[in-house]
Amino acid sequence: MAAYCDRVTRTIDWVDGAVELIDQTRLPDELVVQRVEDVATLVDAIQRLAVRGAPAIGVAGGFGVVLARDEPDFEAAVASLRSARPTAVNLARMVDRVAARPADRMLDEALAIRDEEIAASRAMGDRGAELVRGLVGDDGVRAMTICNTGGLATVERGTALAVVQTLHEAGLLEEALVLETRPLLQGARLTAWELRQAGAPHRLIVDSAAPFLLARGVANVVVTGADRVAANGDTANKIGTYALALGARQAGVPFVVVAPESTVDTATPNGAHIEIEDRGAEEVVTIKGVTVAPQGTDAANPAFDVTPSELITALVTERRVVRLADGERL
Amino acid sequence: MAAYCDRVTRTIDWVDGAVELIDQTRLPDELVVQRVEDVATLVDAIQRLAVRGAPAIGVAGGFGVVLARDEPDFEAAVASLRSARPTAVNLARMVDRVAARPADRMLDEALAIRDEEIAASRAMGDRGAELVRGLVGDDGVRAMTICNTGGLATVERGTALAVVQTLHEAGLLEEALVLETRPLLQGARLTAWELRQAGAPHRLIVDSAAPFLLARGVANVVVTGADRVAANGDTANKIGTYALALGARQAGVPFVVVAPESTVDTATPNGAHIEIEDRGAEEVVTIKGVTVAPQGTDAANPAFDVTPSELITALVTERRVVRLADGERL
Repeated sequence: MAAYCDRVTRTIDWVDGAVELIDQTRLPDELVVQRVEDVATLVDAIQRLAVRGAPAIGVAGGFGVVLARDEPDFEAAVASLRSARPTAVNLARMVDRVAARPADRMLDEALAIRDEEIAASRAMGDRGAELVRGLVGDDGVRAMTICNTGGLATVERGTALAVVQTLHEAGLLEEALVLETRPLLQGARLTAWELRQAGAPHRLIVDSAAPFLLARGVANVVVTGADRVAANGDTANKIGTYALALGARQAGVPFVVVAPESTVDTATPNGAHIEIEDRGAEEVVTIKGVTVAPQGTDAANPAFDVTPSELITALVTERRVVRLADGERL
Repeated sequence: MAAYCDRVTRTIDWVDGAVELIDQTRLPDELVVQRVEDVATLVDAIQRLAVRGAPAIGVAGGFGVVLARDEPDFEAAVASLRSARPTAVNLARMVDRVAARPADRMLDEALAIRDEEIAASRAMGDRGAELVRGLVGDDGVRAMTICNTGGLATVERGTALAVVQTLHEAGLLEEALVLETRPLLQGARLTAWELRQAGAPHRLIVDSAAPFLLARGVANVVVTGADRVAANGDTANKIGTYALALGARQAGVPFVVVAPESTVDTATPNGAHIEIEDRGAEEVVTIKGVTVAPQGTDAANPAFDVTPSELITALVTERRVVRLADGERL
């Protein structure tokens, strides 16, 4: 079931006994809220990226366990949620957290996860904005960012984009430069849409232009999210993040990762141990249903890459700032 | 006038008193040859990228001067050709070369440019393949490449892609990895099409995946073309080339530029003096006519970037190999 509405403040929520989520595959063309009443539909929504972004996926996983109580095989339903996406560590973690509660406490636990994510977004925005102000000095902030890390990736406000929004609300944002983020164009479709909603000045760029524009001084800080942060600070994030980090280092521009504590995975020693999902050729050879390569062309399509900790000026979470490039440890 | 045909060997040629060129905006969907009988149409073909690639544009400019003889204002027509694209130095150079001849010798001069480009492509392919064999040792060649530098960018065979084709004909190519090359997708549309015609194994990737795939050892050499090489070896090429060079250096993978001597511009001391064309927002916010960002989204769209000579293992021309990163000078 899909419903149109004029205004939605939360990307995902629990409404009248079921999950409601913004179908992000329909943005920016139309704002559609999907109501999800069973686990299979929720797993499908996660896999087709109707709901995406590590924090939002974690909240979805928590609500999914509540839905799983009504399924014939609770354990199988929970297992399918747990493995819906391989890279985001907090999907499995949030699923496990809710599933460990008695059945009559599961909804409270899932709602607590939602509320914690909202509070975390606000804290990351504040902490990150303060850090960025210190890094760029008296200049206006010209922040480059990849993928979508806004309210659509969490529940409200976001992670890296919460920092941009907080800076904008404080009158300190000169411009945001948004990488379009091939293959799925989350930057062009979602981040540009959110910045427009927020009235924040922004320009779109193709991903491969980012290192050159950094070299030419167009941006003075890079802010990105994270899907998983290993114990040594190596960070898995949307494909293209590593290239952006190389460009930032070469240009002497600070590179800041903003992510909730739930993405920190101390069980993974370093980036070499992070599984990278290959999402197949289709996303590369077609764009919004239009074929851009000869029929039958094969592709390599890593969905994420790994940025070594030495390229990361700082990791900002809701609790702390860790200056990884200076050798601070998690 | 457009005609369909089964097979075309030359991207651009002089046929029965006019220019005929493959309209590259129509590939890979259909192979259309456009017949061009006046300068304004040729300038338009250059500007809308129906003909593209520095060597092919140079040949087009030479033929254009021959067409200009029949125009009411020869000088104005030549000036419009000369400035049809700002970054490719050999467009102006080839226009000037033909325009300096007596009217009855202009066609011979333009045909000589065409023949020189064909011979140069073959020489670059041979010289580059020999260099790559030496660089990768006994391994099969896994060559990463950006944009289109094949026969479509020259008259036949190409520059960087001539190297790939020569390696493939020698049985040494394990795989080519093709960057799709946003915004205009010349890699996806044209290079994938040419490699398919040649029967060479290849996979497409999104541009931003290149540095990460290099870090993971997927390719063992990078080959690119050039639009302009400054006196110190700094090289302007398709946007994304600089990011690719950063990724190659970080991974310890050789980065080889293949371009004709005509792209070497000793009058430009270094990359900071190369004018970079911004082609406007439209190419970024739409892909093959499909809008990918919210209505009214602005974009920065540098068409080229500059790779510093210290990131370039070697420049291969039809005459020589210059090991720039080792400090050899042009």
